[in-house]
Amino acid sequence: MEQKYRQGGFTLPGEAGYEQLTLELARKWGADVIRDSDGTKLSDEIVKAGYSIYSTICIIRQHNAFAAEHPDSQQQTFLCSEPVVATDAVVTIEPMKGYFTEQFELNDSPDALPYWQVYDRTSNTEVPRDRWTWADGVVRISGCTLWHEYTVSFLCWRIWEEINMYNHTTNSWTSEHLRQLDPRHPAAWEYLQGWLENWCVENPGTNVVRLTSLFYNFVWLFGADMRNRNLFTDWASYDFTVSPAALRAFEKEYGYALTAEDFINQRKLQVTHMPPTKAKRDYMRFIQDFVAEKAKVLVDIIHRHGKKAYVFYDDSWVGMEPYGPRFSQVGFDGLIKCVFSGYECRLCANVDVPTHELRFHPYLFPVGLGGLPTFAEGGNPAHDAWMYWRNVRRALLRQCVDRIGLGGYLHLTLGFPEFNDAIESMAIDFRRIRELHSHGKPLTARCRVAVVHTWGRLRSWTLSGHFHETDRHALIHINEALSGLPVDVRFLSFEDVEQGALQDVDVVINAGCAGDAWSGGEAWRSDRLVEELTRFVYEGGAFIGVKEPSAVPGYHTFFRMAQVLGIDKDTGARVCHGRWKFDVAEAPFALCPEAVGCDDRLYLTDGGAKVLVERNGVPQMTMNRFGKGTGVYLSDFHVSQESTRMLLELLLHLTGVNPAELCLSDRPDVETAWFPADRTLVVVNGQEAPVSTVIHTPDGELSLSLEPMETRMIVR
Amino acid sequence: MEQKYRQGGFTLPGEAGYEQLTLELARKWGADVIRDSDGTKLSDEIVKAGYSIYSTICIIRQHNAFAAEHPDSQQQTFLCSEPVVATDAVVTIEPMKGYFTEQFELNDSPDALPYWQVYDRTSNTEVPRDRWTWADGVVRISGCTLWHEYTVSFLCWRIWEEINMYNHTTNSWTSEHLRQLDPRHPAAWEYLQGWLENWCVENPGTNVVRLTSLFYNFVWLFGADMRNRNLFTDWASYDFTVSPAALRAFEKEYGYALTAEDFINQRKLQVTHMPPTKAKRDYMRFIQDFVAEKAKVLVDIIHRHGKKAYVFYDDSWVGMEPYGPRFSQVGFDGLIKCVFSGYECRLCANVDVPTHELRFHPYLFPVGLGGLPTFAEGGNPAHDAWMYWRNVRRALLRQCVDRIGLGGYLHLTLGFPEFNDAIESMAIDFRRIRELHSHGKPLTARCRVAVVHTWGRLRSWTLSGHFHETDRHALIHINEALSGLPVDVRFLSFEDVEQGALQDVDVVINAGCAGDAWSGGEAWRSDRLVEELTRFVYEGGAFIGVKEPSAVPGYHTFFRMAQVLGIDKDTGARVCHGRWKFDVAEAPFALCPEAVGCDDRLYLTDGGAKVLVERNGVPQMTMNRFGKGTGVYLSDFHVSQESTRMLLELLLHLTGVNPAELCLSDRPDVETAWFPADRTLVVVNGQEAPVSTVIHTPDGELSLSLEPMETRMIVR
Repeated sequence: MEQKYRQGGFTLPGEAGYEQLTLELARKWGADVIRDSDGTKLSDEIVKAGYSIYSTICIIRQHNAFAAEHPDSQQQTFLCSEPVVATDAVVTIEPMKGYFTEQFELNDSPDALPYWQVYDRTSNTEVPRDRWTWADGVVRISGCTLWHEYTVSFLCWRIWEEINMYNHTTNSWTSEHLRQLDPRHPAAWEYLQGWLENWCVENPGTNVVRLTSLFYNFVWLFGADMRNRNLFTDWASYDFTVSPAALRAFEKEYGYALTAEDFINQRKLQVTHMPPTKAKRDYMRFIQDFVAEKAKVLVDIIHRHGKKAYVFYDDSWVGMEPYGPRFSQVGFDGLIKCVFSGYECRLCANVDVPTHELRFHPYLFPVGLGGLPTFAEGGNPAHDAWMYWRNVRRALLRQCVDRIGLGGYLHLTLGFPEFNDAIESMAIDFRRIRELHSHGKPLTARCRVAVVHTWGRLRSWTLSGHFHETDRHALIHINEALSGLPVDVRFLSFEDVEQGALQDVDVVINAGCAGDAWSGGEAWRSDRLVEELTRFVYEGGAFIGVKEPSAVPGYHTFFRMAQVLGIDKDTGARVCHGRWKFDVAEAPFALCPEAVGCDDRLYLTDGGAKVLVERNGVPQMTMNRFGKGTGVYLSDFHVSQESTRMLLELLLHLTGVNPAELCLSDRPDVETAWFPADRTLVVVNGQEAPVSTVIHTPDGELSLSLEPMETRMIVR
Repeated sequence: MEQKYRQGGFTLPGEAGYEQLTLELARKWGADVIRDSDGTKLSDEIVKAGYSIYSTICIIRQHNAFAAEHPDSQQQTFLCSEPVVATDAVVTIEPMKGYFTEQFELNDSPDALPYWQVYDRTSNTEVPRDRWTWADGVVRISGCTLWHEYTVSFLCWRIWEEINMYNHTTNSWTSEHLRQLDPRHPAAWEYLQGWLENWCVENPGTNVVRLTSLFYNFVWLFGADMRNRNLFTDWASYDFTVSPAALRAFEKEYGYALTAEDFINQRKLQVTHMPPTKAKRDYMRFIQDFVAEKAKVLVDIIHRHGKKAYVFYDDSWVGMEPYGPRFSQVGFDGLIKCVFSGYECRLCANVDVPTHELRFHPYLFPVGLGGLPTFAEGGNPAHDAWMYWRNVRRALLRQCVDRIGLGGYLHLTLGFPEFNDAIESMAIDFRRIRELHSHGKPLTARCRVAVVHTWGRLRSWTLSGHFHETDRHALIHINEALSGLPVDVRFLSFEDVEQGALQDVDVVINAGCAGDAWSGGEAWRSDRLVEELTRFVYEGGAFIGVKEPSAVPGYHTFFRMAQVLGIDKDTGARVCHGRWKFDVAEAPFALCPEAVGCDDRLYLTDGGAKVLVERNGVPQMTMNRFGKGTGVYLSDFHVSQESTRMLLELLLHLTGVNPAELCLSDRPDVETAWFPADRTLVVVNGQEAPVSTVIHTPDGELSLSLEPMETRMIVR
């Protein structure tokens, strides 16, 4: 193996006290950079060993003394009490009951109290202020309607930075609970700038400041009861940015006031998986502007000290969407994304920023995000790493990044030599793939796919959070499958479609449940949208609908695109209607019936659609000619190697691409990429076992055997 | 066996040409009445054999000559064309395309054409009259919006009476297609009265005129394509009552006009399983009044001739609901109901009419309603009869009827002696059960159950049609289970509940899918309803919610009774919320987990509910203390002997009744009834195999062995 593949583009987490291990693994893995991690330090010996140094800063977190002096500079959020049923005309409610008091502290300051709201949830109306009082730890509501449910929405301080809280509770840390400052507080903002200035002076050895991340964490609410510890987690929602100061500034800028209910939303909160209200969209823009403006000041300080500023796209990243309108204006030098999945790799790789870096999983922690052991008894971190690599590698073959790396406690790798060998092997393969990309793009079929949903480009590739956090949504399965396919993929909003974005698109995918952000909900009341998509298919395009695509109640069909799909879902009124009988048709590609769902309320609209998969006599996957184009329906999509292959063959079929052009293998667990500039065919084995396969190329068949998880490069 | 159990209360279908068989089976089954059937005749020999004679009359049907002379006296309906996508500014639609032209004939008379409507289904708006024309068999619509879908709603004649059409197509009849007259047509109504008068004169041997049934059939639309023959069947909807004359009369009486769209309802039609609009409720009342008024005239004619008038509650019964406000005013002497199930028996038995008669299944036809052979090769009519009897017998033990009988072609029983023996045995058991009831009611637990839904008392026991036609609805499973349980059952509407009907109720059941008539849909927006049910449970009542009880969108919980149930269903917004962990609790009664569903969107609201059944970590059956009462949730209910037993034990548990009081057996397939007046315990074996069982009575245990399907009577 050439030395160029053994070194570079690799960030190693160093650890003081393990200097020898640090330098040894830096050599083995070919690191050019050493970083610290949350909870670890680098020693002078490491810093001076000749490597570039990344230093991790969570800018809003390491300032407990300042927070103690200025408690009003801490971050806040709205919470809502448990509902209480009125068994009397007077109801008393303890607002904080059920919440984790180590995370939250009620804010009843004169600044905050006007934002509190009491609601009659049964009648869906706010209780006027003169009907409730707050004293002695309870809200006392008078004039209640018997048997109605009441809640109190209130502001509270967040007194434990959530990532620190997670690490404490996961890894049994005993150190001081870290607090977090709100940069909107003028004194805190002054202080933070000075602190960063000073930090840069005191850390001359640091080449890159790795911001982890910026100001506001994703929303993560803990409960008091261990049976219900996780009350809420949404990787992309904005509740933790709120404060009376923010609400006042918003009102001034947007000309209308937000209330607690704009955030609390009947105790459902404003989850990313649902279409946003106009108020939420405005508020997001407001916060994005604020975050970009403040982040730019920090990046400018870092640059002035001759260092680079990379930002970690996780944790307190809210308001910093890399596909948002303000991201590129901040001036970051790099974006770092931790990855379990292929879609996370594509998410990172496509951002407009000089350097893209992936932080691999597993993190060097005793337990993983799912709570199972990794670097601990019962764990198998090498296997975990291979499984994540299997996802990431296929995405890297489509679109590469500049760097990879790890994070956590390096000493935990002791006793796991197979893990260390696995990382060494992956790093080599990564560098070889990166080199191919540097000479030219891989071959991509003329098959331009647009995933269409509420958020469009802003939520390219991701929905919200990691795969396991969103795996109930069909779209994340589709995004994951797409992330390694040789097709062109883009993400469009419904507004984009209405404004003509389908001009250079061949296939549209709409995948979600009725009312959610991914299906689209109320957006489908737009006749313009239905017209444009109908035209698109009639004139030769393809529309793939998954689960409850284009679904909205109130029309003659539940799926607004039923005329194109040839299938619809009964919401109750059609229970007395007959159903078209059908024969299952042979599919013009390899099916994966297990990937499709089981919905007993589907029915063929006019009997014209071909049924490819059925369950209990009900069609689950169909294909319908409409004009010159095609509507395809799947009742669900569950990602696997087999279903990924089905999706690819379906896409090629819909766009008339001959699969042989793409040098596909005869097995779904073996994928390929052809790099014309280097005339190199990359063949990857997605099994932890040896396999034999035949590759169908335009020049004939190619038989080969691959080692477990092998990345084979064949020059032709 | 005493002679009194061998004779009486039995109606036999006689058949000309099979006089000996008729009289032989009349003796074997103990018939006191001989009837004709649709398609059979009685000969003089039979009529004069000393039996009472029922003669079947389908009053609107046997008049093809009159119909030919007065084609405008035939019945009508609204239909809606298939939707057509506009690929041009002008769209042409053939209204009748897809409909069975032997059933329907388009009505474009000057009387009917004003009721036609053209709709843009994409924009949900009617196309003005000046934008469309009707000529040469097509509707031509101009000024269409490209890619929108258009439909034509129109009136048509129904030129083949639907039961005759069914018998023709099922039994390959080749006789003339029978037409049907609309009694709203003045000439037809005059003619029908005269015809009946004359018929009574000409049939002096007839004791009972069996009306099959009255004027308007339930809605049954046939399609042209054999792959989609059954377009729509709803046993309780009103479309077949419509005509320009009816619409004009309605407008005059109710002060507003109905349109085609009031019936067509976006091509969904007005199905009984969905909550009715105000217009539909008004229209039903309007038709009920008309049907009652006209039926009374016919019954009076029959009575004047010294005959009785029984009405068959199936086929053309629409507008004659036996639990409707006008039924008892008609003056019927008897109600005949065909039965597959226990709930149909209760439905009949509870009606305010002198004589209640059940017509057993299987009907003496070559094939059954489900399309499988009965009295034909491959059929097993004895087994079929036992299975229906199993359902009916347990209901008869709770509430008896006066008579039983059969229908169809008697000669088909030749070659099926086991069937004839089975009927003989059932007839004896029926008479013994009837006698017990005549001495006093069976013991019923102090457990007063109210099933609450949109229709309330009007749709007591039934939903719409036979069990197999409504088996996708949990409530019909519950009604069937309840039909044989020793508890008090009533059916209430939401208005009844709001007006205080829970005063003498112990348990409320609400079972249905969100938005349907059984769950209740929009009715749950009534705060008054929620208040009353919350109070009811808080003060000691029980609320059993099944599937999506009390569900309506727009509130903080999807189930409006979630505060009582302790469980709710996420409709998408709560996907990021954590879920309460739980242990499965031991149930205080025998569970039947197979009867419960599998819904992965359920979540515990406050963690207080006991989880009795879970699937994949999601609670499916729960029990929640609320005040002095209890909320019970089941994600579904599928009737079986085991689940019926579970429901009984649940009801007794909720009302504090000691099961031993009721002399229950130790097996769910053996049920009992205690008749205190005769000190008789009836024990019935619901298996076609011998069983041994132990009955727990207040006086100790009683062990016994039962023959297959045995009805054992034990005097104690």
